[in-house]
Amino acid sequence: LAKKTIDIPTPHKSIYAKRGMSLEKEINESNQYYLATHQAVIHKKPTPIQLVHVDYPKRSAAVVREAYFRRPSTTDYNGVYKGYYIDFDAKETRNKRSFPLKNFHQHQITHLKECVAQGGICFAFIKFTELDELYILPATIVFHYWHLKEHHHRSSIPLTQIKADGIRVHYGLNPRLQYLPAVDQLIASVNKGVTHE
Amino acid sequence: LAKKTIDIPTPHKSIYAKRGMSLEKEINESNQYYLATHQAVIHKKPTPIQLVHVDYPKRSAAVVREAYFRRPSTTDYNGVYKGYYIDFDAKETRNKRSFPLKNFHQHQITHLKECVAQGGICFAFIKFTELDELYILPATIVFHYWHLKEHHHRSSIPLTQIKADGIRVHYGLNPRLQYLPAVDQLIASVNKGVTHE
Ligand SMILES: [Mg+2]
Ligand SMILES: [Mg+2]
Repeated sequence: LAKKTIDIPTPHKSIYAKRGMSLEKEINESNQYYLATHQAVIHKKPTPIQLVHVDYPKRSAAVVREAYFRRPSTTDYNGVYKGYYIDFDAKETRNKRSFPLKNFHQHQITHLKECVAQGGICFAFIKFTELDELYILPATIVFHYWHLKEHHHRSSIPLTQIKADGIRVHYGLNPRLQYLPAVDQLIASVNKGVTHE
Repeated sequence: LAKKTIDIPTPHKSIYAKRGMSLEKEINESNQYYLATHQAVIHKKPTPIQLVHVDYPKRSAAVVREAYFRRPSTTDYNGVYKGYYIDFDAKETRNKRSFPLKNFHQHQITHLKECVAQGGICFAFIKFTELDELYILPATIVFHYWHLKEHHHRSSIPLTQIKADGIRVHYGLNPRLQYLPAVDQLIASVNKGVTHE
């Protein structure tokens, strides 16, 4: 069990966890709206839990008494939109000039690569909290920088690159975070054979 | 929290839970094989848990000390295969002549309907344990019988109907449960506009 790579709220990283919650909360609200209006079916996956001990009291709900967080083998979100399989992870940073690659884990990269190979629409949903700017960044760009990290010790993706190859996500009224138009653009570019590389 | 509709192992339904595990275990093994051979990316979703109390001991992993099972809002499995979004639930019955509709929950039907509307490939993966026969049954057929249940108090789908409208899944060597060929047939019939109705 590799503790460091599990995204759960622990006391020493409560600030990170809170930041994490905020983008996820916004995405979850958008997903609820998109589901209710029959525009897309996208859900956050539950955190996997290893159950050790469960009590079954009479006349009331089962209670988990001992359990541990397991490392997810996939990304945060997946679902279906206009016939396309959608798969992404939500990531936040307080940085203002680049996105640190340490926010990605190898298992997420591996999963996204498998999904891209099967024809899925895959990306990182990145929020620069201090700039209040959001982007969806095609998974292929993430793979490119992940490769640079492994082979050339590069540690982040410059914001200039994200502006060039990502698609900006804007706030609106309902839902507040309107990310399907950005997904439409990504789908169009994938269908046109734009490789972003 | 609607206890009755949550598929968790409780003492009084341990036999059902074990039966449930068996088909799921077979499907999970197939999914591992399909993933390792780059044929499909399909995962079982974790059971959602409502955390109430978590301990964070020094120098060891966080321990869940109080938590409750939540009702999933989706089905058991989803993923991507040849560009298609795949979504299904695994169901077992000891019946020999029909599949009882009480094995479905309204939230599963609602979810499958939303996914079909978005162009997903959706089905029930049904195992008749006493017959050792497996079928994938297109979601549209399930909707038809669910409608009959609600309006005409029909309580099950006859095996004859499942044989007629479902696609048989066969055992093989590797993986033992070879269900992608059945999914291929379902995709072909959906693309041909066969409505199964
Ligand atoms: Mg994330
Ligand atoms: Mg099931």
